[in-house]
Amino acid sequence: MCPVTDRIDPDIDLAGRMFRELAVRTGDSGGITRPSFGRGEQIAHDMLRREGERLGLRVETDSACNLYLTLPGRVPEDRIIIGSHLDSVPCGGNFDGAAGVLCGLSVIAGLVATKARPPRDVTLMAIRAEESNWFAASYIGSRAAFGRLASSELSRVRRASDGMSLGDAIEAAGGDVARLSAGQAHLEPARIGLFIEPHIEQGPCLVTEEKPVGIVTGIRGSFRHRSACCRGRYAHSGATPRQLRRDAVRATAALVMAMDEVWDAAERNGDDLSITFGQLNTDPAEHAFSKVAGRVDFSLDVRSLSSGTLDWVAGSLAEQVGRQSRQHAVRFDLGPKTATLPALMDGGIVAALQAACSAEGVPTITMPSGAGHDAAVFAGMGVPTGMLFIRNRNGSHNPHESMEMEDLAVAARVLMKLCLEPPR
Amino acid sequence: MCPVTDRIDPDIDLAGRMFRELAVRTGDSGGITRPSFGRGEQIAHDMLRREGERLGLRVETDSACNLYLTLPGRVPEDRIIIGSHLDSVPCGGNFDGAAGVLCGLSVIAGLVATKARPPRDVTLMAIRAEESNWFAASYIGSRAAFGRLASSELSRVRRASDGMSLGDAIEAAGGDVARLSAGQAHLEPARIGLFIEPHIEQGPCLVTEEKPVGIVTGIRGSFRHRSACCRGRYAHSGATPRQLRRDAVRATAALVMAMDEVWDAAERNGDDLSITFGQLNTDPAEHAFSKVAGRVDFSLDVRSLSSGTLDWVAGSLAEQVGRQSRQHAVRFDLGPKTATLPALMDGGIVAALQAACSAEGVPTITMPSGAGHDAAVFAGMGVPTGMLFIRNRNGSHNPHESMEMEDLAVAARVLMKLCLEPPR
Repeated sequence: MCPVTDRIDPDIDLAGRMFRELAVRTGDSGGITRPSFGRGEQIAHDMLRREGERLGLRVETDSACNLYLTLPGRVPEDRIIIGSHLDSVPCGGNFDGAAGVLCGLSVIAGLVATKARPPRDVTLMAIRAEESNWFAASYIGSRAAFGRLASSELSRVRRASDGMSLGDAIEAAGGDVARLSAGQAHLEPARIGLFIEPHIEQGPCLVTEEKPVGIVTGIRGSFRHRSACCRGRYAHSGATPRQLRRDAVRATAALVMAMDEVWDAAERNGDDLSITFGQLNTDPAEHAFSKVAGRVDFSLDVRSLSSGTLDWVAGSLAEQVGRQSRQHAVRFDLGPKTATLPALMDGGIVAALQAACSAEGVPTITMPSGAGHDAAVFAGMGVPTGMLFIRNRNGSHNPHESMEMEDLAVAARVLMKLCLEPPR
Repeated sequence: MCPVTDRIDPDIDLAGRMFRELAVRTGDSGGITRPSFGRGEQIAHDMLRREGERLGLRVETDSACNLYLTLPGRVPEDRIIIGSHLDSVPCGGNFDGAAGVLCGLSVIAGLVATKARPPRDVTLMAIRAEESNWFAASYIGSRAAFGRLASSELSRVRRASDGMSLGDAIEAAGGDVARLSAGQAHLEPARIGLFIEPHIEQGPCLVTEEKPVGIVTGIRGSFRHRSACCRGRYAHSGATPRQLRRDAVRATAALVMAMDEVWDAAERNGDDLSITFGQLNTDPAEHAFSKVAGRVDFSLDVRSLSSGTLDWVAGSLAEQVGRQSRQHAVRFDLGPKTATLPALMDGGIVAALQAACSAEGVPTITMPSGAGHDAAVFAGMGVPTGMLFIRNRNGSHNPHESMEMEDLAVAARVLMKLCLEPPR
């Protein structure tokens, strides 16, 4: 139904072959496993390097083994980087990360096939170690590319699966830890015209809205209490009157519902927000059906595109914790708080993606990204950054990720348009 | 401050010595363990038999090894039975059960010391197997005394600690399973004038109200869902909008709060009720701080003195389950329901206990028993039945049960009054 972008087609068949090869070579029992700086990720990087050499692209790696495949443009300034990661969570799906890289590969391969030189250099970047399941640090590969990996992380952060330090794992993959420790950057923000990360959507919005792609307006910041606790007092369920209870379940349920009202108020106000109590447990060693619960452990994850909203929710949380503590005679201990800042996507790139979609006749919506992505690092470094979500069923980080190649093709057409007619 | 009842003192020193001997002989690491038809319970029964023989009482056992120590009265009709159990939960306290038996022993020993014959026979009954932790059946000893133990229970119910069948355990303790299977009763309800069970309070009301004893108006009935479940859908916490979530934590918290409102409404209406969600757990194998929870398992325990209130709460529960299922797009499965009927105490005995307290100058309150007791069996058999709660700190079924001997003495004085001036 949509005309081909300036008659240059992305090579979607190549992307399809690569997905199938990845599934065979990095599959495990039921899912896909590509550990950061491990075997599965390396297989994926080797495959990309092979294709880059076959297509005659300029092939580079940096000190953290990020891979760059570049098709030179008519002018070298203001290069366009299309990138995403190739690692996966344990027993995850084939599309989270890889879809973005292979979408970019299909665009560059399409350009190569026509022998047309794009207006600017177009680089496909295969980023290392985005999934923090393996090493408990965020955005390792993209931060390393900008020389922003702390030497303490290199020595102290260890891989969950085998205990290897991040530095040793990078060395084993062929990287240069000395350069990383010294903060030497491979990428200069000022020399990047724009960075685009295509990625499968990890939620259900595009499926629900029946749109093949979504344009990301920003990556939510967050604050988290991963190990919060409510302490009351165990008591006989039949023998303890309501007003004498110190019921940790009732108090925590009241906090959950109070924070749900905070969320509702924010939505009515048009503020972007999500509030999630994902883990909530009485103590199996002590609880009983006939005991008022004396303890509940829980987690709280709050995300928003707006730092102001995050601050407001933190204030409401403190207020509600105080109120429910008094109301139910319990004590809340929220435990350590971790936080990330929101990263807004570049307004010019959002507009350019909207224009490209419109020109291609592609139905789309704008939406926040609730999950973190390497694009946040590029935006944080001042690079004009955008993200394009691709429709995907069943969420991500599980073997049931389900992206249709037709939707990847739509995303590739939009990116092709951007490479041929870059903004500014 | 209070005058001695007709100048006959209960033998509180004897009760004190027996508690100390029980603590030494049935203590384990940190607590007290007297398994039903097991070693600790047998030690307690042997001690009681020894004291009964020393005091010259008539000593009997029945087919389930319940022990009866009787001081003959001036007339044998309408005997008074004071009774409670001598088993304990694993690692429990020294007072739950034993306090009632030793309170009764102190009364009878006091009567023996004066050589006065009470108006009627006074029997101390040491009941077997009240704690259903050992054998998952309620009121084994008291039901057996009335020939109401099913032969299927004798063969099928097995002790949690060692797998021994109830019948084998009773035989091993010297009982007669053939007679129990045949439904032969030791007690005839019509020949019992009244049954009184003294027992430590298992909740905090008497401590809070600063009363040494409480007069029980009834034993709450209950309905329970011990393994209920809420099924939603796991989803990315950052990427799943509020209206597309099927959040099992939010739905279950909403149910907890809705049932709390039901409880509040019942209390405002003057209805006796307790509602407890004692266990509430997301699935450790699947949950994560960054996932909307797809499943919550929980328990629900509802108790009331009124069958009508229990029925009304069951109706409200069904309504709320329906409402929250629709609201949050989840599915609740409440699982099996078990239920017991409320047992009201005899109004004449409640009045007699109140009169005795008043005559003795003992401050008291009336209150429901939230926990089940053997008294429920006697009431159910049509025996005029009462219970007297003794103040106790820190709840029961734990090593920190804390009853003062002064409060046991107050309860014994009240019972002495009842033995000397029985109602009717």
